[in-house]
Amino acid sequence: MLDHSNLSAVHESAVTDVGLSTQQAVPVTVALGDGIGPEIMQATLAVLHAAGANIAPEFIDIGEKVYLQGHSAGITQDAWQSLRKTKVFLKAPVTTPSGKGFKSLNVTIRKTLGLYANVRPCISYAPFVQTQQPKMDLVIIRENEEDLYAGIEHRQTDEVFQCLKLITRPGCEKIVRYAFEYARSHGRKKVTCMVKDNIMKMTDGLFYQVFEEIGAEYPEIAKDRFIIDIGSARLATRPELFDVVVTPNLYGDIISDIAAEVSGSIGLAGSANIGEHVAMFEAIHGSAPDIAGQGVANPSGLLLAAVMMLVHIRQAEIASKIHNAWLKTIEDGIHTADLVSTHTTLEVSTEQFGQAVIQRLGQLPSRFKPVQYQNPAVKPQETRALYQRKPAAKKALIGVDVFVHQTQLSPAQLAERLQSAQTELLELEMITNRGVKVWPEGFPETFCTDHWRCRFIAPENAQVDYGNILTLLFGISQRGLDVIKTENLCTFDGIRGFALGQGQ
Amino acid sequence: MLDHSNLSAVHESAVTDVGLSTQQAVPVTVALGDGIGPEIMQATLAVLHAAGANIAPEFIDIGEKVYLQGHSAGITQDAWQSLRKTKVFLKAPVTTPSGKGFKSLNVTIRKTLGLYANVRPCISYAPFVQTQQPKMDLVIIRENEEDLYAGIEHRQTDEVFQCLKLITRPGCEKIVRYAFEYARSHGRKKVTCMVKDNIMKMTDGLFYQVFEEIGAEYPEIAKDRFIIDIGSARLATRPELFDVVVTPNLYGDIISDIAAEVSGSIGLAGSANIGEHVAMFEAIHGSAPDIAGQGVANPSGLLLAAVMMLVHIRQAEIASKIHNAWLKTIEDGIHTADLVSTHTTLEVSTEQFGQAVIQRLGQLPSRFKPVQYQNPAVKPQETRALYQRKPAAKKALIGVDVFVHQTQLSPAQLAERLQSAQTELLELEMITNRGVKVWPEGFPETFCTDHWRCRFIAPENAQVDYGNILTLLFGISQRGLDVIKTENLCTFDGIRGFALGQGQ
Repeated sequence: MLDHSNLSAVHESAVTDVGLSTQQAVPVTVALGDGIGPEIMQATLAVLHAAGANIAPEFIDIGEKVYLQGHSAGITQDAWQSLRKTKVFLKAPVTTPSGKGFKSLNVTIRKTLGLYANVRPCISYAPFVQTQQPKMDLVIIRENEEDLYAGIEHRQTDEVFQCLKLITRPGCEKIVRYAFEYARSHGRKKVTCMVKDNIMKMTDGLFYQVFEEIGAEYPEIAKDRFIIDIGSARLATRPELFDVVVTPNLYGDIISDIAAEVSGSIGLAGSANIGEHVAMFEAIHGSAPDIAGQGVANPSGLLLAAVMMLVHIRQAEIASKIHNAWLKTIEDGIHTADLVSTHTTLEVSTEQFGQAVIQRLGQLPSRFKPVQYQNPAVKPQETRALYQRKPAAKKALIGVDVFVHQTQLSPAQLAERLQSAQTELLELEMITNRGVKVWPEGFPETFCTDHWRCRFIAPENAQVDYGNILTLLFGISQRGLDVIKTENLCTFDGIRGFALGQGQ
Repeated sequence: MLDHSNLSAVHESAVTDVGLSTQQAVPVTVALGDGIGPEIMQATLAVLHAAGANIAPEFIDIGEKVYLQGHSAGITQDAWQSLRKTKVFLKAPVTTPSGKGFKSLNVTIRKTLGLYANVRPCISYAPFVQTQQPKMDLVIIRENEEDLYAGIEHRQTDEVFQCLKLITRPGCEKIVRYAFEYARSHGRKKVTCMVKDNIMKMTDGLFYQVFEEIGAEYPEIAKDRFIIDIGSARLATRPELFDVVVTPNLYGDIISDIAAEVSGSIGLAGSANIGEHVAMFEAIHGSAPDIAGQGVANPSGLLLAAVMMLVHIRQAEIASKIHNAWLKTIEDGIHTADLVSTHTTLEVSTEQFGQAVIQRLGQLPSRFKPVQYQNPAVKPQETRALYQRKPAAKKALIGVDVFVHQTQLSPAQLAERLQSAQTELLELEMITNRGVKVWPEGFPETFCTDHWRCRFIAPENAQVDYGNILTLLFGISQRGLDVIKTENLCTFDGIRGFALGQGQ
C-alpha cells in the first residue's frame, strides 16, 4: 500500500517547483482506491505534476478498507465534505467486498451528488491496440439520473409487474446542452441523438424534441438521429459514422458497453460523471487485484480521465500537452505488459510508462491525430443554471385511466360493470390489456392478463376536477372491482398529454 | 406482376406430381407482396414444390395496392379470414406507401393475432458473404407484445413524461417456453437470457425468474445469463458465445439489429412471428422496388423463412433437405448478383438460383455444417395452452404511492402539508423525486422536478382497504395539492410488491 502523505508531499513540492502558488491551484479530491489504484494514481499524478497542472490534491479514503470499517457505501463523512468543497474528484478504481449489504460506491456518489451526465470517449488505437474497428473515435454522453433507472417498480396484480420510465424536460435539457457544449469545447463536429421515438412518442419524443430545440443554438455543429436499434447496430459495425452521441440512460448503458468492447481499448479508457456541482473522473476498468503491487498495470485509463478533468477545470492547454505526449508514447511502441505486441519497442513498468509520457511532454504524435482542447466557455462553478423552469402550461384534467385487477369478467362484462359506475362527467371510452384495445371491438386472439386499463373521459373533452375522479373511483370500488392504480388524463395548453390505445 | 392463379396452379400440380393428396396438404396463406416479392416468392415456392413440401397455398393480396384501395393497414377482411383459417402465413415483403394514415401491416398483424415471439436466426456464411464475425450462428427469440411497447404513455406534469414498462408472468412464460422448445427442435445446445435485473429487479427480475423455472424442465439444454449492456457488447464482438438468446421486447429489438448487421447476412435472413394461434414467416429485408421485375433479387431470405415454416408445421425432414441444398448452392459459388465475390463460380438470376437449389436437393454441404431439424413435440394447433393461470396469491393492500404535481413547496413543506392529510391508517413514509429520496433526510444536491412521489404506508404493515386510500386522496386534494397518479402498495403472499426508494 502506498502512503498517501508521500504522494501528497511529492505533489505539493511539484506544484511549488513549477512556480505556481498553491493558493491559486484548483483543489481536487483524489482517491487512491484499491488494487492497482495507488500505483496508477501515482504515475498519473507524476505526469500531471510534470506537465504543470495547477491542482491541489486532497486525498480521501474510499473503497474496501472503508466498506470493512462499516460504511455501507465505502465512503466516509470526511470524504463527502472534501467532495462538496473541491467539487472535482479524481478517483482510482475500488474493490467492493463480496457479500450482501455493500452498496455500489459509484451509484451512491452519482445519486447523492446529482451527476447527470456520463461521458465516455471510445477510441481505437490501431495498430497498437487490437480492435475490430480501427476508425473509431467517438464520445457517448449518457443521461445518468432518470429513465427506467429511477427504480420505481410495483407488482400490480398476480401476473403483472411494472417499472416506470420517467423522461423529464430538465433531464433532457441538461444532458443535451452538456453534449453540445462538450462537442464545442472538444472540437467535435457532430452530435447524434439515439432514441426509440417511433414507439415511445411521448417520452423518447420529448428527448428528441429537446435535442432539436437546443441543437438549433449550435449552428456550427452537425446533428443526426438514429433509432436505437439500428443505431446500436451501426455503432458496432460502422463507428466512423459517429462523433458525439447523446442518449437516455438505458440506451446509453447498452451502447457504452458496445463501444468500449468494439474499440478494444477498455484498459485505456477514462470516463467522467458530471453534475451541476461536482464532477468525478475515473478509468472505466476495475481494481485488478490479481496484478496489484507488481508495478505492471497500465495507468492510461486514469491518465486520460485526468485529461478530461483538466479540460473540465479549464486547463485545456495542459490537457492537450499530456494527451499528445501519451499518444506519442503509444505510437513510439513504449507499452506496459497489457499492450505488448509486434508494435512494441520497449516493455515498461507502470512508473516507467509515466516517465516516458513525461519525456514526451511538448511533443506531438505523428501517426495519431494530435488533440487540441478548448476551455469550456465559463468555469463550471459559474455556469448559469443548466435548466430554467418554464412557465406552467394551462393544464386541464379531462379524464382518468383506472387500472383494475380482475380475472372473472370478460371485457364486455367488465365494461358493463364499469359503465354502471360511470358518472355524467366521466364515461368509459375503452379498455385495453397490455395496451391492446379489448373493448369496444376487440380481437378474439388477444391474450388477456389480469391487468386492465380502463379509460374514462369527459364527454366532448369537458373539464373535470379531482373530486369527480374520486367519485368515480368510489363507485368502481363499490361495485367490487379492485382498483390498483390511476393515471390522470390531461391536456397541456390544449395538447393531449396521453397516448391513444393500440387499435383505438 | 405475376398472376396468382398461375402460381397456384403450378403449385397444385406440383403437389399432385409428388403423389400427395391436396386434402392432406397443410393449408398455408401466401402473400406475394410488392417490389421483388412476387419473383422471390415464385422461386421459393418452386423449391418447396420440388422438395415435396406438403402445403396447399391460399393466395391473398396485401400491401401497396390494398393500402391504396383505402385499407389503412394494407390488408382486407378476406385476407384476415384466410389467416385465421390456415393459421400459417408465408409473406413476401410489402411496400408501405409514403404519406400519413398508413399503419404498419406487421404491427397490425402482430397485435391483432397475438404473435408473441419474434424469432430471428443470425448466421454468418463466411467466406461467401462478407462478415465481421465469421463464427456467428445464433437465434434471437424476442418477446413481441409487452415491455415498453404497450404504448401506455402519459404526460404527468409540465416537466415529466412517463411510459409504462409492463412485464407479465404469462408473457414471460410463453416466450421462455417457446425459446426452450425451439432449442430442442432445432438441435440448439444453450439458451441465454438477457435482462437488466440488477437495476429492474422486479420486472426484469420476473423474466429471469421464469427463465430459471422453465429452464429447469430442459435439463439437456445449457443456460446462461448476461446483463443486456455487456450482453449486447459480447454479441457484437464474440457472437460465438451465443446459441439461442431469449430477451424482452426492447432489448430484443436492439440486439436483433446488432446481430443482423454484424453477421453481414441481412439479405439472406428469414424470421418468424409466432402466436398461440397463427404464425407468420418472412424475409427480414424489404421490397427493394429499385430492382423489382429484373429477376436479379436473391430469394434466400424468403426461402429460409419458408424453411422455418416447414419446421413449424412439422415437415422437418423437408425443411432440412431444402436448407442443406441451399447451403450447398452457396458454397458451390452459385450466387445472385448481391453475393458476387471472388468465391462466386456462376452468377445467376432469381429463378436460376432456385433451380440450382432444386438440383442439389438431397445433397449435403461440405464446408458448412449440415442442418438436421426435428419436428416440434406436437402439432402447433394441438399444443396445450402455453400459459396456465396460477392460483391467486394472498394480496394485502398496505399503502399507496401518491404522485403530486407542484413547484411551490420544498420537500419539507410538502411533507408537512401531506402529513396534515394523513390518516391513522396511512402515514407519510417518504417523498422521492425521480426516484431519489428527498424526505426525510434528502441531499442538498438533488435536483427536483415538479413531479413528487409520496409514499403512504400503514403502520406496522397493517392492512387497509381502498376506501382508506380514497379518504387520504380526498384529504390531500382538499389541501390544494394536485394528485396526478396513484399506485397501490401491496404484498403478495406476504412478499413486498414494490421497490424501496433510492436512499431509503
